[in-house]
Amino acid sequence: MNAVVNVYRGEQVESSHLGHIAVVDQHGTLLYSYGDPQRLTFARSSMKPLQAIPIVETGTADRYQLEPADLSLCCASHSGEPRHRQRALGMLERAGQLEATLQCGTHVPRHEDSYKELILAGKQLTPVYSNCSGKHAGMIATATHMGEDVATYLLPDHPVQQRIMDVVEDITGYPKEKIQLGTDGCGVPVHRLPLANYAWAFAKLAKPEAISNPVRRDAAKRVVEAMIAHPEMVGGENRYCTDLMTAYKGRIVGKAGAESVYCLGDRERGIGIAVKIEDGGARAINPVVNEVLRQLGIDLDGAWKELHAYTNPPITNMSGTVVGRIETTFQLKPENVSIC
Amino acid sequence: MNAVVNVYRGEQVESSHLGHIAVVDQHGTLLYSYGDPQRLTFARSSMKPLQAIPIVETGTADRYQLEPADLSLCCASHSGEPRHRQRALGMLERAGQLEATLQCGTHVPRHEDSYKELILAGKQLTPVYSNCSGKHAGMIATATHMGEDVATYLLPDHPVQQRIMDVVEDITGYPKEKIQLGTDGCGVPVHRLPLANYAWAFAKLAKPEAISNPVRRDAAKRVVEAMIAHPEMVGGENRYCTDLMTAYKGRIVGKAGAESVYCLGDRERGIGIAVKIEDGGARAINPVVNEVLRQLGIDLDGAWKELHAYTNPPITNMSGTVVGRIETTFQLKPENVSIC
Repeated sequence: MNAVVNVYRGEQVESSHLGHIAVVDQHGTLLYSYGDPQRLTFARSSMKPLQAIPIVETGTADRYQLEPADLSLCCASHSGEPRHRQRALGMLERAGQLEATLQCGTHVPRHEDSYKELILAGKQLTPVYSNCSGKHAGMIATATHMGEDVATYLLPDHPVQQRIMDVVEDITGYPKEKIQLGTDGCGVPVHRLPLANYAWAFAKLAKPEAISNPVRRDAAKRVVEAMIAHPEMVGGENRYCTDLMTAYKGRIVGKAGAESVYCLGDRERGIGIAVKIEDGGARAINPVVNEVLRQLGIDLDGAWKELHAYTNPPITNMSGTVVGRIETTFQLKPENVSIC
Repeated sequence: MNAVVNVYRGEQVESSHLGHIAVVDQHGTLLYSYGDPQRLTFARSSMKPLQAIPIVETGTADRYQLEPADLSLCCASHSGEPRHRQRALGMLERAGQLEATLQCGTHVPRHEDSYKELILAGKQLTPVYSNCSGKHAGMIATATHMGEDVATYLLPDHPVQQRIMDVVEDITGYPKEKIQLGTDGCGVPVHRLPLANYAWAFAKLAKPEAISNPVRRDAAKRVVEAMIAHPEMVGGENRYCTDLMTAYKGRIVGKAGAESVYCLGDRERGIGIAVKIEDGGARAINPVVNEVLRQLGIDLDGAWKELHAYTNPPITNMSGTVVGRIETTFQLKPENVSIC
């Protein structure tokens, strides 16, 4: 049983989560694992940095003067704060497109004040409030720049999605014909690969010199540096992605995915880490990532300590009293095998 | 691996949930199991029908003219609809108490329109919006009727909680000294017992003649009949508890608990069922309960079919398109052992 997290009520375990972990270096060597490092996994929004690479490669970013903060928003599962919505709309505007071209659907944003304002103004949720609106704005801008059909940018055989498939194959090192597809929560194709290949991809994002194609290498570098420079665009206030990258001051690039996935890269050591909680339970993922960083000894005296609120989060009742806690239970297993 | 549910994205498994199931008859015989039927579990709000029994036993229900709908609300994790809030406030008023005596804390109610109304009126959430406000109103009314301190009704050694402990010991058949305590989301003590004992308790609620103490037997009967007569008070619109009891027209009494617990009793056969999803993932519980009912052959041509929306719920993306589904994966194992 590959338990990674116990959830306590008082001093007793109430619930527990299983999980899978892969730690891979830039050369494709699996260094550590837990559970099944080859688990076939939809990495969901953790793939947004890869999905953003064609925006640079195609020249779209230059054509529409995308700033680093814009490019960071293209990699975001943002909270729908005003700064996020304004940038997404701004990118569309520079590409000559309207909000209505966004096909991401919508949902109540994490940023409560933005939602309350909307209700008070008697307005309805629109697609720009979706946490994926930056990614979709980037896809639409790319299709526009390339003179492709904008109405069908979601479809797996659209050039926008085909270019993303090429990037995923190249950077994860996993052959296209073996990649299974599903549909993501925002309507775009989502790819299913072994967890270790996502870890390898993030090792390469952390050390783009490991990417052989020079145009792709530069594009990957530009995307990662945008996220590092503007972590507030990747998530928002009190969001783990934002706080993780802020605390590590450029050392770590990381991105969460739905169904409890996290992928991150250590730019100092050139290693990538990918985690999947088996049941998709969101509360388990941040404590597990923090514990992996601790076991790998990544800046324990500095940045890691700043993230303590995510390490053993308390369980509170509806009056705010602490009635339990979340604790990790795993020990990484050393490995030394190539996944290439 | 005791997997009970697979979550599919397209045709691939994205996440999965483990679980535990106990099916026990009114005499305390374990009939079927899956996973660990003796798993020590906090049943959380699934215990509300037991927590409501002292309201009747003490004469509180008669003293303050609690109607069956009020008593049903005392067993509820309600959605905070106007009908729920009005009844909770009405019970407090008849006991001569104010809303401020409720110590359940508060949270955004499931009933979206009620929350929007509150925001539009510029008001704040108050404790009556908590899904537990009916249970707390019942506890406060009981303390008032008994002349006990109202300010401390949450504490484990308060007579209100001690009477509940007596009921839990008696009806679950599990000795008080072995029961571990935690604090529930609403601040009251919550009990940790083997899953099979919860199933036995619900078998007794289904057939109260199995309860030896005649006062308790009548009180249990009155509580169960209140829930059966007013399932709309136990949950609300589009809530599984409400829809389950409505569909089965008096045959089933059931109550959900936080961290993915469900307890129910079949009043025709006199059996109780208790389910716990190991990771506490809410989406897994209703499909599992429906599948247990199917495997036990409980009214498959009638009520069961009406609940189809809960059996294999689709996973939709933010535009409402179906992109996956939830499917159960378990087969109950026949047993025939006494848990007494």
